[in-house]
Amino acid sequence: MPQPITSTLDSEQQRIAGEALRNTVVDLIDLSLIAKQAHWNVIGQNFRSVHLALDELVTAARDFTDAAAERATAIGVSPDGRAATVAQNSGATGIGDGWLEDRAVIETIVENLSAVIARLRERIDATEKADPVTQDLFIEIAARLEQLHWMWQAQVASA
Amino acid sequence: MPQPITSTLDSEQQRIAGEALRNTVVDLIDLSLIAKQAHWNVIGQNFRSVHLALDELVTAARDFTDAAAERATAIGVSPDGRAATVAQNSGATGIGDGWLEDRAVIETIVENLSAVIARLRERIDATEKADPVTQDLFIEIAARLEQLHWMWQAQVASA
Amino acid sequence: MPQPITSTLDSEQQRIAGEALRNTVVDLIDLSLIAKQAHWNVIGQNFRSVHLALDELVTAARDFTDAAAERATAIGVSPDGRAATVAQNSGATGIGDGWLEDRAVIETIVENLSAVIARLRERIDATEKADPVTQDLFIEIAARLEQLHWMWQAQVASA
Amino acid sequence: MPQPITSTLDSEQQRIAGEALRNTVVDLIDLSLIAKQAHWNVIGQNFRSVHLALDELVTAARDFTDAAAERATAIGVSPDGRAATVAQNSGATGIGDGWLEDRAVIETIVENLSAVIARLRERIDATEKADPVTQDLFIEIAARLEQLHWMWQAQVASA
Amino acid sequence: MPQPITSTLDSEQQRIAGEALRNTVVDLIDLSLIAKQAHWNVIGQNFRSVHLALDELVTAARDFTDAAAERATAIGVSPDGRAATVAQNSGATGIGDGWLEDRAVIETIVENLSAVIARLRERIDATEKADPVTQDLFIEIAARLEQLHWMWQAQVASA
Amino acid sequence: MPQPITSTLDSEQQRIAGEALRNTVVDLIDLSLIAKQAHWNVIGQNFRSVHLALDELVTAARDFTDAAAERATAIGVSPDGRAATVAQNSGATGIGDGWLEDRAVIETIVENLSAVIARLRERIDATEKADPVTQDLFIEIAARLEQLHWMWQAQVASA
Amino acid sequence: MPQPITSTLDSEQQRIAGEALRNTVVDLIDLSLIAKQAHWNVIGQNFRSVHLALDELVTAARDFTDAAAERATAIGVSPDGRAATVAQNSGATGIGDGWLEDRAVIETIVENLSAVIARLRERIDATEKADPVTQDLFIEIAARLEQLHWMWQAQVASA
Amino acid sequence: MPQPITSTLDSEQQRIAGEALRNTVVDLIDLSLIAKQAHWNVIGQNFRSVHLALDELVTAARDFTDAAAERATAIGVSPDGRAATVAQNSGATGIGDGWLEDRAVIETIVENLSAVIARLRERIDATEKADPVTQDLFIEIAARLEQLHWMWQAQVASA
Amino acid sequence: MPQPITSTLDSEQQRIAGEALRNTVVDLIDLSLIAKQAHWNVIGQNFRSVHLALDELVTAARDFTDAAAERATAIGVSPDGRAATVAQNSGATGIGDGWLEDRAVIETIVENLSAVIARLRERIDATEKADPVTQDLFIEIAARLEQLHWMWQAQVASA
Amino acid sequence: MPQPITSTLDSEQQRIAGEALRNTVVDLIDLSLIAKQAHWNVIGQNFRSVHLALDELVTAARDFTDAAAERATAIGVSPDGRAATVAQNSGATGIGDGWLEDRAVIETIVENLSAVIARLRERIDATEKADPVTQDLFIEIAARLEQLHWMWQAQVASA
Amino acid sequence: MPQPITSTLDSEQQRIAGEALRNTVVDLIDLSLIAKQAHWNVIGQNFRSVHLALDELVTAARDFTDAAAERATAIGVSPDGRAATVAQNSGATGIGDGWLEDRAVIETIVENLSAVIARLRERIDATEKADPVTQDLFIEIAARLEQLHWMWQAQVASA
Amino acid sequence: MPQPITSTLDSEQQRIAGEALRNTVVDLIDLSLIAKQAHWNVIGQNFRSVHLALDELVTAARDFTDAAAERATAIGVSPDGRAATVAQNSGATGIGDGWLEDRAVIETIVENLSAVIARLRERIDATEKADPVTQDLFIEIAARLEQLHWMWQAQVASA
Repeated sequence: MPQPITSTLDSEQQRIAGEALRNTVVDLIDLSLIAKQAHWNVIGQNFRSVHLALDELVTAARDFTDAAAERATAIGVSPDGRAATVAQNSGATGIGDGWLEDRAVIETIVENLSAVIARLRERIDATEKADPVTQDLFIEIAARLEQLHWMWQAQVASA
Repeated sequence: MPQPITSTLDSEQQRIAGEALRNTVVDLIDLSLIAKQAHWNVIGQNFRSVHLALDELVTAARDFTDAAAERATAIGVSPDGRAATVAQNSGATGIGDGWLEDRAVIETIVENLSAVIARLRERIDATEKADPVTQDLFIEIAARLEQLHWMWQAQVASA
Repeated sequence: MPQPITSTLDSEQQRIAGEALRNTVVDLIDLSLIAKQAHWNVIGQNFRSVHLALDELVTAARDFTDAAAERATAIGVSPDGRAATVAQNSGATGIGDGWLEDRAVIETIVENLSAVIARLRERIDATEKADPVTQDLFIEIAARLEQLHWMWQAQVASA
Repeated sequence: MPQPITSTLDSEQQRIAGEALRNTVVDLIDLSLIAKQAHWNVIGQNFRSVHLALDELVTAARDFTDAAAERATAIGVSPDGRAATVAQNSGATGIGDGWLEDRAVIETIVENLSAVIARLRERIDATEKADPVTQDLFIEIAARLEQLHWMWQAQVASA
Repeated sequence: MPQPITSTLDSEQQRIAGEALRNTVVDLIDLSLIAKQAHWNVIGQNFRSVHLALDELVTAARDFTDAAAERATAIGVSPDGRAATVAQNSGATGIGDGWLEDRAVIETIVENLSAVIARLRERIDATEKADPVTQDLFIEIAARLEQLHWMWQAQVASA
Repeated sequence: MPQPITSTLDSEQQRIAGEALRNTVVDLIDLSLIAKQAHWNVIGQNFRSVHLALDELVTAARDFTDAAAERATAIGVSPDGRAATVAQNSGATGIGDGWLEDRAVIETIVENLSAVIARLRERIDATEKADPVTQDLFIEIAARLEQLHWMWQAQVASA
Repeated sequence: MPQPITSTLDSEQQRIAGEALRNTVVDLIDLSLIAKQAHWNVIGQNFRSVHLALDELVTAARDFTDAAAERATAIGVSPDGRAATVAQNSGATGIGDGWLEDRAVIETIVENLSAVIARLRERIDATEKADPVTQDLFIEIAARLEQLHWMWQAQVASA
Repeated sequence: MPQPITSTLDSEQQRIAGEALRNTVVDLIDLSLIAKQAHWNVIGQNFRSVHLALDELVTAARDFTDAAAERATAIGVSPDGRAATVAQNSGATGIGDGWLEDRAVIETIVENLSAVIARLRERIDATEKADPVTQDLFIEIAARLEQLHWMWQAQVASA
Repeated sequence: MPQPITSTLDSEQQRIAGEALRNTVVDLIDLSLIAKQAHWNVIGQNFRSVHLALDELVTAARDFTDAAAERATAIGVSPDGRAATVAQNSGATGIGDGWLEDRAVIETIVENLSAVIARLRERIDATEKADPVTQDLFIEIAARLEQLHWMWQAQVASA
Repeated sequence: MPQPITSTLDSEQQRIAGEALRNTVVDLIDLSLIAKQAHWNVIGQNFRSVHLALDELVTAARDFTDAAAERATAIGVSPDGRAATVAQNSGATGIGDGWLEDRAVIETIVENLSAVIARLRERIDATEKADPVTQDLFIEIAARLEQLHWMWQAQVASA
Repeated sequence: MPQPITSTLDSEQQRIAGEALRNTVVDLIDLSLIAKQAHWNVIGQNFRSVHLALDELVTAARDFTDAAAERATAIGVSPDGRAATVAQNSGATGIGDGWLEDRAVIETIVENLSAVIARLRERIDATEKADPVTQDLFIEIAARLEQLHWMWQAQVASA
Repeated sequence: MPQPITSTLDSEQQRIAGEALRNTVVDLIDLSLIAKQAHWNVIGQNFRSVHLALDELVTAARDFTDAAAERATAIGVSPDGRAATVAQNSGATGIGDGWLEDRAVIETIVENLSAVIARLRERIDATEKADPVTQDLFIEIAARLEQLHWMWQAQVASA
């Protein structure tokens, strides 16, 4: 079946960039759901700081999800961000059930961010030749997630 | 294990309201993911109207998800909005993979809204005695979703 | 003829809630026209206060008109807010022709608000079983109109 | 009875401009009620576009109603915008009862705009000598309504 | 002496709803004064989080005070929110004099919120028959105070 | 001496329009100073309404002063709005010294507005042939001042 | 016991400025409660003007309460703004129970403002040597309260 | 071929007003392109002032282009604002290639404004009978362009 | 005749502060009229910078006029800001008639600011004992006018 | 002739990047004129969606025009965006004269976007070595235009 | 060499006020650099609170730097805020290199604030006679820095 | 000592990117201090333009300082922006003491921008392999600084 949306990329470029984008969409949706889960279930004396910081992470994850998904459509590739797809394919490390103390939340978030960033770094390399426009989006996402990674890690760091 | 967040509800009231809220959280997250999926994959001459209207639905679904999840915490019940939980327990009817023509999108959204509203209607009855505060939230959610249901249905109706 | 917009209410519930909403639409449009009429025709030393307060009433009446009409559509009932319908069916007590002194304006508005509120109170009872979502809207409208009723009455009250 | 609000116009000028303004108030209130009626009752695949465009028309009609009514008061003439007056004297062509398909809505709106504009054009001529300030207001209203007339007509036009 | 503001409630309904509202006004003013007292006197390593969160509580308490007082006036009952009345009749549990460490502040706020919510829950039951409009306001206040109760409690909770 | 700013008007048109604009600048500055004087010195039970309404008049007078002065410059005529010029040439009727009761303020403002509007009406006629752009500005100013004239007069009118 | 917050003032300066600030906090809280009480209970033909003006007074009193209390903390002195403290120590003259006619409200507010201003004037003198920073805050509060005193008095003044 | 958009003007009125509007669209687009060209290429010590003022001119030219083009459509005449049409038919005097010193830029802009205004003045006369609504738009455009003409000329004027 | 607005100042303090404030009102109104006169009549290559900067001066002068006049009323003294009073009593040095080159405008403004500031400096001394609240206002005005004095002087300074 | 604006690029880099930027300026201005032409001349049942979407395209094209032109200046190259230059050198495919049905408009826009994007893609390659800053701007422009290309294409696509 | 900016202060007053202002500029720039350094290098469980609070301090320090520097210019004294001047002359106590734990950051900030406030207190005394306008600025800066000093100290205080 | 913040870069990449970022922080802080110094000390007839343009440069320099410093932390490298470090290590060319004429200010700013841009260009090359995310930030900074370089240079350029 012919694809309804055409692309200026050749089919190999489209395949590489499209796969990278589809996987990024899945990782970022999962990251937003994990952060929301923590936002609701965190307890402990740093509740308020952590509760608020998690919503900043949710906002970042949602905005980048949209950017990655619409970049996929722009090169003629249909994104898939349904719950079952996310549950099966996400590269994030996940979060446990129930109430969670603030320090455990912070460590969980740092871990999830590390996993998602590592996969993004690979995609930055993979798309350099295939599509510099897609690569530029991955660089922008990595820049913001690495900034957040520092901020979350700083809360559990000691000199 | 003692629950870390106490409630003024007795344990039976808490059980009824808590279950209703946890299920609502799951339904609404799924609704937001389905609407985003459609937002990206819709094609056809009404693309722009449908694309924009889907984001209004996403916003509504996300805001009510937060309201329901935080109501659960307010009565001492931990919400669960992780991808796997949503994939397994959602009461929404779902959406297919790949590009989707606008009329099919509209019909899919009407169907999902119907299913979610029907479950909300039952919870409005179920929580009347258990917790009028929770019931009031369900009434507010139903009011908005039924308004959206009309707007989506109006697009495929004929006199 | 089949109705183009379906509803989760059964036909008796739909009939009761629909009739209550259609009548409310008519009352509120009339209230907004009466308040505008007074807004233009008021004279007297309290002109400015009354002129401004009337526009707040107009805004409230218009917003609730829309809410009631769209609630009717949400349950599959077509609202009718045309001039002739309003002229025939309104439950408001109306306003005289020509310039009107400020004290007379205030008394006219208090009277119209009383009439509209009394009818709303009956509809709050009537829709309790038929549709709690519609009842909730009537409670919200009544709360605001009763607040305005106090404010207008306070201007002609003495201790 | 002496008029409470005086005017710098002589009585003949006041009569001509006052009558033109009072009729304009009636036409524009009716136009706003017709557009709201359509806003609620429209169905069809262009529901969203038409629904939104109708509210722009409502806003325009309401703003000009106020401008015309307050111009009448400024020249010492009491405006009459009550429901019964509108129902009897409006120059608009009206709208049918019940749900209405989008194309029928568009045609109805074009027809009503044509009728109201034609009457405004006559009043622009009639008030040129009597009161250039009132004429200027009619020119402003005509400019906007003719713009809307084009936009609505464009939806049913073919090259 | 005849009351200057009339009500559509009968005198027994007015008595029940009026008393509930007057007591709520007193509780909420006290809550706002207690939260401000804590806002100024808190010390400790969570100073900033607690200091900011207390002002959110003050804002909520003040907004609901106004809503409850104006609901009382709307049913013809005069509210009393003077300092001496608050000092004598408040159902809140109060706060100590002087500087207060952050953990002690949190526990004091949780306690005060619990006391005020418990009294609100009783008034929700008491006004169900007397006045559903007043009941609806109490439900709205309870929903927000129970949300704040969770957020404050979460800061001293452990899993 | 050659004028530094040229104009597309011929010298007779420039003389007529320029004189009308220079006089309008003087009248409007005086109107703004009179309204400010009243704004500070008004006393009486309608103090607050009159005090606020006077600032709306000040704002209108200042905005139109700028418009008229910059229209003069646009046709190559230098405007003169210095205190001594205003004191000598204003066509407004002025205001007395010291504290002034609210009713007296209202009558003074109505009188000043009447005088300024009458002169504007003459200039609308005078500039019709000389410069329709200038005439259009005078029509706009008259429209607003006549609206304010009604609002001030309405405060001392009786039916 | 050592004070937890240190100050650059010596202990005598701290005592004088601290006492002046603590008393100001009490007076201003009482003023805000009195103004709110009047805001709800005022009746009479100037209801709307007085009702709105009272909220401006509430806002001023609340903002200055915060400024004075935080100035106390800044010099190491704990403020006390609890209901019982206010009820016992306020220098305001208070307000009666129940509905109150507009003229009586105005006179009550003028009286309370006079009393609070007189005490502030003494504190401006008392703190000149002890702490010019605190004195500057009192000057700012006095400037605003004296402006409000004029505005309220103007409503009952006659020339 | 029948025109898809009808007009209330007769065919001669439509021809006159339509031609005037189509030519105005072309002049104003050219004016905006010339101003942008200058905005980028200006150099000299008044760079910043001139650079910023040019963008105000661009904004004015673009807004009036839209107004004129949509007025053409409103009377059933299709506007033509394509680059080739502008290049051939514009009545503006143009701008040279490459970097341009600030004084030269100012003189070029004054010259272009003069040419465009002169043509507008003719169209104000030409459309007086044909269509007062179109004439009113030309008066508004002339008023603004003549104001800008003064401001630009003032920069090269000497007393 | 008894003064309608009372003051907490004794009569000598009131006389000193009142006279200083009345004179300040006159100086500042004149300053605002002079700056507006320059705003319209300036020509030269720095037209745009000077034209814009003059409006900042107008805004400052108007805001301080209001502050000084309302401080006069707050101490029971009626301000006089009528055109004739300003023309006779102003301490500003004035501005010439007609078009004015930019450098001459700058020098005129510097001169006027110097004169007004010098008189303010005297009033700061004169009111130190009489009324520290009034003195504080003069200090605030001087601070801003001296800042503007620098900015205007900087335009004609050379190192 | 020496260039007035220097650059850190060597002359070959400057030549390559400068030419790419100058051509991009021309393409984007043409795109904005084409989109405006379509914005005014579109007819058909999707008039409103297409009319609004075209203005988003205009905004994007104008913003990027400015960015590209100012990047050219930043590297010392004068941009040329005059009408005649655009008419001769544009790489866009253009648009026909007169009214245009909505589907034809969409196809025309897709075609023009394809042509402009293809040329941008070549410039991304060409400037990689010459100037990564310029390349980065082209990547940003391509990302947005490819997104718009998808959105316009989606309206004529079928699955 | 004559100073380019004149002052109404005599040379001794200018010397005293000028020196005090120049030193304040240096202290405040250093304070802003120290706070930024801490903003980037803080780690520990209170990272987020401290990170955010430091930016409020930066904003305060920068705003007051500008105010002090522009006050210096207003009295004809050139401020010096270059890096080397700050490095040599600052009265702040500084901050160490590298990552810093949150408690150490708080203590460092309290110490720096103490040092800067102590020097400001001396300048408040020193400028009382020399220039009350400058003194007033120092009082305003001290008020805000002492408030911040309390807030930072509160984080390490215990009752 | 182990670094408290980890990075996904290897140690060599971290060393290269970290050094480039730390030097950029120093250059940009110095640029902001130099621009502020000029902002206060500039004199001459272009005072206002230059004074305002310098604050745009300050804003740009401060925003990029933060971006570079937080990118350093994101890769585990502590930034150093203290006054002494800036005074010793900055690559900017600096600014002289005391009042400075506008043309000299412009030349100084152009020189400093050139020096900082040249160093940035080297870092763009150096980080291409080490860290594309850091390189992307340098490209963004260079793009903006080169735009500002053109704008400042344009003020002293001649054709």
